[in-house]
Amino acid sequence: MKRIVVVGGGAAGIGAAGAAKQTDRSADVRVYTDFEDVGYSPCGIPYVHGREISNFPALILQSKEFYEEAGIDVHYSTRVTQLDLDRNRVMVEGEGDVGYDALVLATGFEYEPPGVPGSDLEGLYYVKNIRRAMVWDEILDEAKRAVVVDATPLGLEMATALAHRKIETHFVDPHPWLLAEAGDPDILKPVEDSLVELGVQMHLRTRVEAFLGDGKLAAVRTSDGEIPADVAVVCTPKQPNNVLARRAGVSIGSTGGLIVDEKMATSRAGVWACGDCAELPHAVTRVPIQGLTGSHAYAQGKVAGSNAAGGGRAYRPVYVPWGMAAGKWMIGGVSFGETLATALGIPFVMGVAEGISRARYFPGAMKIRVKLLAEPDTLRLIGAQIVGGEGVKERADFLGMAVYTGITIPDLAWMENVYSPAIGALNEPIALAAQNCLASLGR
Amino acid sequence: MKRIVVVGGGAAGIGAAGAAKQTDRSADVRVYTDFEDVGYSPCGIPYVHGREISNFPALILQSKEFYEEAGIDVHYSTRVTQLDLDRNRVMVEGEGDVGYDALVLATGFEYEPPGVPGSDLEGLYYVKNIRRAMVWDEILDEAKRAVVVDATPLGLEMATALAHRKIETHFVDPHPWLLAEAGDPDILKPVEDSLVELGVQMHLRTRVEAFLGDGKLAAVRTSDGEIPADVAVVCTPKQPNNVLARRAGVSIGSTGGLIVDEKMATSRAGVWACGDCAELPHAVTRVPIQGLTGSHAYAQGKVAGSNAAGGGRAYRPVYVPWGMAAGKWMIGGVSFGETLATALGIPFVMGVAEGISRARYFPGAMKIRVKLLAEPDTLRLIGAQIVGGEGVKERADFLGMAVYTGITIPDLAWMENVYSPAIGALNEPIALAAQNCLASLGR
Repeated sequence: MKRIVVVGGGAAGIGAAGAAKQTDRSADVRVYTDFEDVGYSPCGIPYVHGREISNFPALILQSKEFYEEAGIDVHYSTRVTQLDLDRNRVMVEGEGDVGYDALVLATGFEYEPPGVPGSDLEGLYYVKNIRRAMVWDEILDEAKRAVVVDATPLGLEMATALAHRKIETHFVDPHPWLLAEAGDPDILKPVEDSLVELGVQMHLRTRVEAFLGDGKLAAVRTSDGEIPADVAVVCTPKQPNNVLARRAGVSIGSTGGLIVDEKMATSRAGVWACGDCAELPHAVTRVPIQGLTGSHAYAQGKVAGSNAAGGGRAYRPVYVPWGMAAGKWMIGGVSFGETLATALGIPFVMGVAEGISRARYFPGAMKIRVKLLAEPDTLRLIGAQIVGGEGVKERADFLGMAVYTGITIPDLAWMENVYSPAIGALNEPIALAAQNCLASLGR
Repeated sequence: MKRIVVVGGGAAGIGAAGAAKQTDRSADVRVYTDFEDVGYSPCGIPYVHGREISNFPALILQSKEFYEEAGIDVHYSTRVTQLDLDRNRVMVEGEGDVGYDALVLATGFEYEPPGVPGSDLEGLYYVKNIRRAMVWDEILDEAKRAVVVDATPLGLEMATALAHRKIETHFVDPHPWLLAEAGDPDILKPVEDSLVELGVQMHLRTRVEAFLGDGKLAAVRTSDGEIPADVAVVCTPKQPNNVLARRAGVSIGSTGGLIVDEKMATSRAGVWACGDCAELPHAVTRVPIQGLTGSHAYAQGKVAGSNAAGGGRAYRPVYVPWGMAAGKWMIGGVSFGETLATALGIPFVMGVAEGISRARYFPGAMKIRVKLLAEPDTLRLIGAQIVGGEGVKERADFLGMAVYTGITIPDLAWMENVYSPAIGALNEPIALAAQNCLASLGR
């Protein structure tokens, strides 16, 4: 009987375990996780804090019995401390040496340490584990003032959540606009405005210099003065948790992620990796990237687990359609926007338009701003960004497929679109942006 | 100065006039319309009747001054009675002979006559003109019981509207399910259920045999008994209004629509046609179709008007993404579903899945059922149908482009998708349907 060991119980690890079992019903599939639970959605935690979802148990997607019945042997609260890849063994706290035939690393991410004095104070919250989140939710009940550190996607979600919860919320980020490493300023401006409307106090172009307090957080010192605070939610960028793999000699890439090929195989035979601990080349730029979404982690896990069990699946190059709710808007896109493309030196032509989500007279019709980037010669779509009131996820999925298949600006400019007052406007905003791109080129 | 005459002031005619003027600023662009108004959205009328939109003026998109300022000379309430294509003249009631250099026919549609006794009674409502709609809205204030004849898209909208308005609504259609000429039974079943929930009384598999009454409608006689009614909303299929063109010798196709080429040119030199009066081959089946949407009419109008003014634009083959709100659901699709493909003898393989629109724990998450049809050999997508709670229009647009560009089931099965609890689920329903299609084929 083949033994497949999966290290990590998040979306990638659980996806891998399920696919391994599906591929080889006879395999002994074992998952080690540091945590008390698997099978819940950590992505939902900010919305429970924000009271948009009523309670934490709602985030639990599968019971422990479900995995037992599926023949997946999950070892909870069990740390793997070392990998011995030459002998095909993992060292497990409380279990000793455990042999494997195939190993899947799904060790996830850590938040980048803030790297300033006072980072060890009580009162700093890193959103991750659901049990810690339940404890923190009670702390938030007592909190009067909070600082959210870094305008990452999680930072946006947590600032929105705390403001919904009527906590005095300060949002601190060193960049001139929100989500500056991924988003364009015109796309994020409505989000910023809506957060201000919700009562969030913005501190952009501002660095966190220290967390202050005597054992417990009392204030955050920034480059622009002190902000008294009971809680700081640290939403620094995610970085791959590569500790075990690096020590065991698995090749690590420039982002800190484990290098994998299209089979999700690492540099070491019999060792696969998936999810936030791995890095992959972006399909357009070929630049390695990490820290994608739960959907990516789950899909990568399925490929890695299937192959670990003897399958031959390939994971496709990633174009990264993305999207999220932020303030009262939705934002999203694919690949990159104007700012990142410029920073990367990628030549592009562009079209921007503001359209609407339904007939303008229909209740609930909302603005949608679409920005399309294309290769100058071929006019093939290479990137997009969107901000709007509805339909952003579906448009980002569409544009992700458009980049993948080589759809061009003229294809989009004269696309057929659904028109029906309650659900779509006469002119699709994507088509309007493409038409504006053509017009700017004199075509 | 070139004179361009446009007959018809709907979306096609107004689109044509605007594009003609844009293409040739010096042209004399004249629009003749039988009606008192242009520049409003007739598609919004059912929603005002249903009180989802508060009033009729909300449907007015452009003022009469707007067209004056744009240099478009609209002759309101002015009938064109005859075309003399040999002499490049149109006969206009009250104006006599009017010469033209280019002619655009945008004469729209008529409802198929019910063809049963009593069709001339007072109390039969054909939804079309906004001024008539205002009068009818007051009649509906007094109405106790209404019959909606035919489960066409308009029939669905009007049945929903009357039910919203708490009028006792009877929905009569000869087919075994709603929208039977375009939609599949499994897609329409939730819509039927939700209409029943709204209080609509369904009379499927039932034919209207006569409208009964003494001058004014009192009841509708059907193959399944009499239904007392104050009002009958006649939502029979749309047919091209081809009277002027046919008499003038313009070639008419099998649907009754004017035959046009990809430039929207008719069989007669210097005469273009667009919108509901024209027919076009469906891009997949090559079967001529007519009676598309306002968005198609407007886009066709722009091509026809531009070419009438000397341009050289082409209109693309149509794949017809469509969508609408119906009951408490949205439905939509592209090209055809299972039923129509079978009726047309088109070979296909299929995949169906039921997914969700957001994380299942997120408030407002709703079911989405997606059905995909593909060519058996190549697995290229050729059709789709969707019913769901949100995001149907955007998915139909996406799938329309997918059919147009030759995207395959494997492309869709392993597509990247946006995942964020508030706006999208871990697994995109389109991908799930494609995966199920592959699974059914043993791939």
